[in-house]
Amino acid sequence: QPAVMETITREAKVRPSSPFLKASSDSASLQRDQAPDRKAMGFVLVHAGAGYHSESKAKEYKHVCKKACQRVSVYLDMVSLAQDSPFTNAGTGSNLNLSGEIECDASIMDGRSLHYGAVGALSGIKNPVLVANRLLSEAQKGKLSAGRVPPCFLVGRGAYHWAVDHGIPPCPSDQMATKCSLSAYKRNKRKIELAEKVECSAGAQVKRSRQSSGKQNGSGSLDTVGAVVVDWEGNVAAAVSSGGLAMKHPGRVGQAAHYGCGCWAENAWKLNPYSIAVSTSGCGEHLMRTMLARECSASAQSEDAHQALLDTMQNKFISSPFLASEDCILGGVIVLRCCRCADSEPSADLRALLVEFLWSHTTESMCVGYMSAQDCKAKTHISRLPPGAIAGQSLAIEGGVCRLGSPVD
Amino acid sequence: QPAVMETITREAKVRPSSPFLKASSDSASLQRDQAPDRKAMGFVLVHAGAGYHSESKAKEYKHVCKKACQRVSVYLDMVSLAQDSPFTNAGTGSNLNLSGEIECDASIMDGRSLHYGAVGALSGIKNPVLVANRLLSEAQKGKLSAGRVPPCFLVGRGAYHWAVDHGIPPCPSDQMATKCSLSAYKRNKRKIELAEKVECSAGAQVKRSRQSSGKQNGSGSLDTVGAVVVDWEGNVAAAVSSGGLAMKHPGRVGQAAHYGCGCWAENAWKLNPYSIAVSTSGCGEHLMRTMLARECSASAQSEDAHQALLDTMQNKFISSPFLASEDCILGGVIVLRCCRCADSEPSADLRALLVEFLWSHTTESMCVGYMSAQDCKAKTHISRLPPGAIAGQSLAIEGGVCRLGSPVD
Repeated sequence: QPAVMETITREAKVRPSSPFLKASSDSASLQRDQAPDRKAMGFVLVHAGAGYHSESKAKEYKHVCKKACQRVSVYLDMVSLAQDSPFTNAGTGSNLNLSGEIECDASIMDGRSLHYGAVGALSGIKNPVLVANRLLSEAQKGKLSAGRVPPCFLVGRGAYHWAVDHGIPPCPSDQMATKCSLSAYKRNKRKIELAEKVECSAGAQVKRSRQSSGKQNGSGSLDTVGAVVVDWEGNVAAAVSSGGLAMKHPGRVGQAAHYGCGCWAENAWKLNPYSIAVSTSGCGEHLMRTMLARECSASAQSEDAHQALLDTMQNKFISSPFLASEDCILGGVIVLRCCRCADSEPSADLRALLVEFLWSHTTESMCVGYMSAQDCKAKTHISRLPPGAIAGQSLAIEGGVCRLGSPVD
Repeated sequence: QPAVMETITREAKVRPSSPFLKASSDSASLQRDQAPDRKAMGFVLVHAGAGYHSESKAKEYKHVCKKACQRVSVYLDMVSLAQDSPFTNAGTGSNLNLSGEIECDASIMDGRSLHYGAVGALSGIKNPVLVANRLLSEAQKGKLSAGRVPPCFLVGRGAYHWAVDHGIPPCPSDQMATKCSLSAYKRNKRKIELAEKVECSAGAQVKRSRQSSGKQNGSGSLDTVGAVVVDWEGNVAAAVSSGGLAMKHPGRVGQAAHYGCGCWAENAWKLNPYSIAVSTSGCGEHLMRTMLARECSASAQSEDAHQALLDTMQNKFISSPFLASEDCILGGVIVLRCCRCADSEPSADLRALLVEFLWSHTTESMCVGYMSAQDCKAKTHISRLPPGAIAGQSLAIEGGVCRLGSPVD
């Protein structure tokens, strides 16, 4: 059994309800025009990938998270999640595949309707999560003509044409590649050629090497961005968007497009006391075969969310029988769960919402950001494994709690 | 709550262990050369789709099942599952999509290694499950050069090129279309055009109609074939292959390519007393959003497999909160579970294997076949909803039990 490393964000744990406890100062205005104010009382947690974040670029990664947080801070505005950042790998600046092309995966899930939309191996669209979101909203409208069931998962050229037909503007792939992703592609191409030469001459092709891929993605860009949000009414949603692994095979679809693997969102209902949203990042095949997003969501219905996430990451990911043949299991997850505060006025129309937010990863590091919609600035953080811990075999887990105020407080 | 209709195959239930209880008559030969005889002691259950099987074509459907059973009857020979049958819709004779092309989905899962391979929206390959199986076996070999993780899920053109690069012969799409699928395409195309005209003139586009699609697939071909097998040692595997819904959008990927939705196989291990394999058929979006294969597998670990499947089909499919907005929920599932017989000689090297096999569907009908590898002929059956039961709201469940003999009997 590998050792479990556990660190706690003191900042978040010690002041459980301070940064976000902002009771509305104007309950009258809330009654006059409830929608915008209610919306403004949500909470968002984002990740800009689990992988390896160098200290030298920490500022840039945090900036990406901060911007993503601010964009997503209104419920379901998370479709703009991954836009236009050359530092993360989803949309602009994506990893190039083995053929030098960009193919993106993305998905989104709405915890209220439990609808889901996803695209895989999509080229030529700047923001794939926008297409996933459109698939979700089209499916919510019901059947197509002649009783046909609307699709929830489209891939490749078909996905591209569907997107363009639905008014999402195309973007030439070469405009999405950056200097950084192009030079990483050339570097990786040489690396593969060299490795194949060495393996060939050493006769190593019979039994393939099992190299650690902890820092394998040397492009400087991260492989995924994701977000989980809750609005004032306790509705949750989750999304994830990814350019996928560098040098992946064309047509390869990773966890970001896979139901139950890239993201999950489920509102509280009779059997589930908590609304929960999850988004993942890391090695797609590891996250898929363990169905990590759904597993984390299911376990987080137990009383202690922190312990549940720790157990899930340990038993259903690092030690998962589904990955028994793997020696380096790479992934990260953000989890948001919430419920109505037991201590708030039971007669109140709008009771306070208790939001717990957590992240955990087996990669060297994971970059996260979070804010309530009332905050004007997001907090960002690069979580790292403790010194000496081995990526792919150990984990870090951190989190915090906040209480979203209510107008009756 | 819709009524639950339940029928039992008397034939199978009343004679729980008769048709397959064939103790090896030559235990000496088994010891001399165990592998082939052990292989010959497995059990296979196949489906040729859950949908609507007309009485007039019953004989042909059954023939498809019988042939599929005989092909799959040796462990993991299920890659030939869907070959060359103009009566089922996977490979030859597939439904055509909205653009008149054939795109297939397929997946396979190995219960021992828990590895999984899948292809989605694949054109130009006759037998997509062959590609899925090759992805599985390539992934089992470990990492690619330069530490790259091998893909487990490929789609579209990328999947096609991967298949051809790995020696799987291409097949022009027009050779895969049949007279039947082409005329169904033309018929469906007219139907859609007409429906859109009517909806448009009636202003019905604002709120889309929710037509029942119980018999929507009017092509005469079924949408999926699948198989579950167990070998003498209790190793299970599951596979599924589908041409998808008729008139689907190009690039649409259904449950047959989706992990946890199209098939599932998990050998017994410390926490799970039973080896279980599942394969599904029906409306891809319904099967995906309920993750039906995995749900059926998880629930079948409880003592009463029949009751567990009934509960799962009722509570996690027909009444699933994930499909709350749907009024007609269409799917079918075959389940195989097995364990060592408690009553067989504990000191014996090879103990008898108890195999339970079940099927359940909410569609009008489902065509299944089953046989032990010792039988020279498969039994086939078209299961139908009881008279008066409404497809999409009711279910049928049937099954049987058999005991695979051991040389120490």
